[in-house]
Amino acid sequence: LKQVSSRLYSSQAIGSYNGQLNKNGNYLATLIPGNGIGPEISDAVVKIFKAAKVPIEWETVEVTPIIENGVTTIPKPAYESMMKTKIALKGPLMTPIGKGFVSLNLLLRRTFNLYANLRPCKSIPGYKTHYDNVDTVLIRENTEGEYSGIEHEVVDGVMQSIKLITYPASLRVAKFAFEYAIASGRNDVTVVHKANIMKLSDGLFLKACEDVGAQYPNVKLTNILLDRACLEIVQNPDNYAKTVMVMPNLYGDILSDMCAGLIGGLGLTPSGNIGKDASIFESVHGTAPDIAGKNLANPTALILSSCMMLTHMNLHSKAEQIRNATLSTIGEGKVLTGDLGGNSTCTEFTDAIIYNL
Amino acid sequence: LKQVSSRLYSSQAIGSYNGQLNKNGNYLATLIPGNGIGPEISDAVVKIFKAAKVPIEWETVEVTPIIENGVTTIPKPAYESMMKTKIALKGPLMTPIGKGFVSLNLLLRRTFNLYANLRPCKSIPGYKTHYDNVDTVLIRENTEGEYSGIEHEVVDGVMQSIKLITYPASLRVAKFAFEYAIASGRNDVTVVHKANIMKLSDGLFLKACEDVGAQYPNVKLTNILLDRACLEIVQNPDNYAKTVMVMPNLYGDILSDMCAGLIGGLGLTPSGNIGKDASIFESVHGTAPDIAGKNLANPTALILSSCMMLTHMNLHSKAEQIRNATLSTIGEGKVLTGDLGGNSTCTEFTDAIIYNL
Ligand SMILES: CC(C)[C@H](C(=O)O)[C@@H](O)C(=O)O
Ligand SMILES: CC(C)[C@H](C(=O)O)[C@@H](O)C(=O)O
Repeated sequence: LKQVSSRLYSSQAIGSYNGQLNKNGNYLATLIPGNGIGPEISDAVVKIFKAAKVPIEWETVEVTPIIENGVTTIPKPAYESMMKTKIALKGPLMTPIGKGFVSLNLLLRRTFNLYANLRPCKSIPGYKTHYDNVDTVLIRENTEGEYSGIEHEVVDGVMQSIKLITYPASLRVAKFAFEYAIASGRNDVTVVHKANIMKLSDGLFLKACEDVGAQYPNVKLTNILLDRACLEIVQNPDNYAKTVMVMPNLYGDILSDMCAGLIGGLGLTPSGNIGKDASIFESVHGTAPDIAGKNLANPTALILSSCMMLTHMNLHSKAEQIRNATLSTIGEGKVLTGDLGGNSTCTEFTDAIIYNL
Repeated sequence: LKQVSSRLYSSQAIGSYNGQLNKNGNYLATLIPGNGIGPEISDAVVKIFKAAKVPIEWETVEVTPIIENGVTTIPKPAYESMMKTKIALKGPLMTPIGKGFVSLNLLLRRTFNLYANLRPCKSIPGYKTHYDNVDTVLIRENTEGEYSGIEHEVVDGVMQSIKLITYPASLRVAKFAFEYAIASGRNDVTVVHKANIMKLSDGLFLKACEDVGAQYPNVKLTNILLDRACLEIVQNPDNYAKTVMVMPNLYGDILSDMCAGLIGGLGLTPSGNIGKDASIFESVHGTAPDIAGKNLANPTALILSSCMMLTHMNLHSKAEQIRNATLSTIGEGKVLTGDLGGNSTCTEFTDAIIYNL
């Protein structure tokens, strides 16, 4: 393990953006509008970026499943754009239903080795839920665990799924968590696990976090059982407002949705999938086919994801400006989409944000 | 699968109690006080049962790990008492830390094949939390899934844990859920799963539930992704107040603690582990070594678990009487233990319940 560890430290830098300005003085970024309400909410972001004079030029691409010789890949133009721009904003993609179909969201995470999934949830002042004090930061290992995709039928009626935990993958996400803890000023990392039950797999994840922690003496490291963490967070999120949680894949899926529920749902929560070479920022809600094309969609999750993207690109003041305008539009409560309790269109909501810029 | 299914239906009855009255006109029940605060909260139940004239005689036994030839078992007296009484009330057991140690709680579930873990959570009128409308019923498969205990190291730094899902174990817990849905008058079952990711294992669990559901045409059957369920429950528990949720082992562990958090924590939530031959009702909180022996413990979870036990034994009116006295004592808010915001002792709290009987 020592060897793996030192190899990892030398070769794998934490995901950071190295994009170059083009001849027009802009950065290039890939836009994957996605399906259902995806194009509408993507248009909202494009419009806001233009109004805020964000120095970004978009390359818009489509992601659909390309199945060749039984292997699913993404279309070449999308792949090539990502390899060039290293950064993307992505709306919801429809996941085909049924065996044999790989979720497109997962496929993107795998294709670009987006190993850290960053999901912050912060109460929006003025938007009423059961809580007003949520401020969680959750980092989800994004490549293995129960998401390994390795399953088999042992005999009729007996199925096994493999939960795969590797030291290198655990190390890199742990390292990301510690770097993020420093960058965010929290200086505190909480490992969430079930090592009391999965002593080997979650035990290894926990060990990797502790090994990384040993290299960050100024960051406090604690750990907690997943069930306990769920209980404590819903009882009083305050105690989780000063730490950065890091955990295996499935736990992050569950806990991030739970936290999203505390602040108002997936329509309000951004996320980022960070890799060494490329990163994708996405809204994690669905395609909402029932309201698609009707100018009723709430673009907030994608807008806030685009702000995370700007932060990742070191365009901090633009990120702040757009985030503040978005949050105060919601907090004012005058121009809101239907899911937020208002009756404005996506366009009206977007224009209100632009007005607040 | 058809064969397994029909075999199961004929041979495996839903866990039901067949205990006989002894010569004193009482039922025998096993009491496992457990460690830490266990004895104090067990005393509270014994005292309340006596005051309420519950026709039960206790056999008190100790459960400690007995390791013979590398296999951990429970002490013979405890085993024999359980085989005789078929029913037990259990306080918290200390789980030894470290590899090689099997959790005693899990060991009991395995030893007696307690396949269904029943965990209701209901807001207590008068006890303030973020919610006042929680009324969830969760049934957790209690024998397999990620709790299979099968793990191995593939190579240095690569661990695999096996999530095992079998059709028979899924069928029996599904059957329990449907029977419970009818008995409770909810007539509605929701399967919670991640079959979008674990298509084979969770897919099989879901299929078993659907196969059982086909035999219960008057019970509504729906299913939902685990992450979505977490989000929806914390957003508005109302929509889960009329269904019985059933799910694989690990998901039940997580979701039941989350629901417990909504109503005030594990100090207030009962649980039952139901098997074909025997059942154990337990408080799922810890041993609280810091306050053990100081008469400060809150016995509510164990008292409410004992009420579930009485219901299981068809002693419905005693169950109701004790539950109501306990909940109104909490609701009145005059005599409360420290964890509930009061400054009364365990004894004072217990006496207040007896006064309210
Ligand atoms: C769409 C689905 C495959 C995905 C997941 O399970 O990871 C989603 O729930 C998420 O959290 O991004
Ligand atoms: C004590 C522990 C092994 C147990 C579990 O994980 O099942 C507990 O959390 C529970 O929910 O009963």
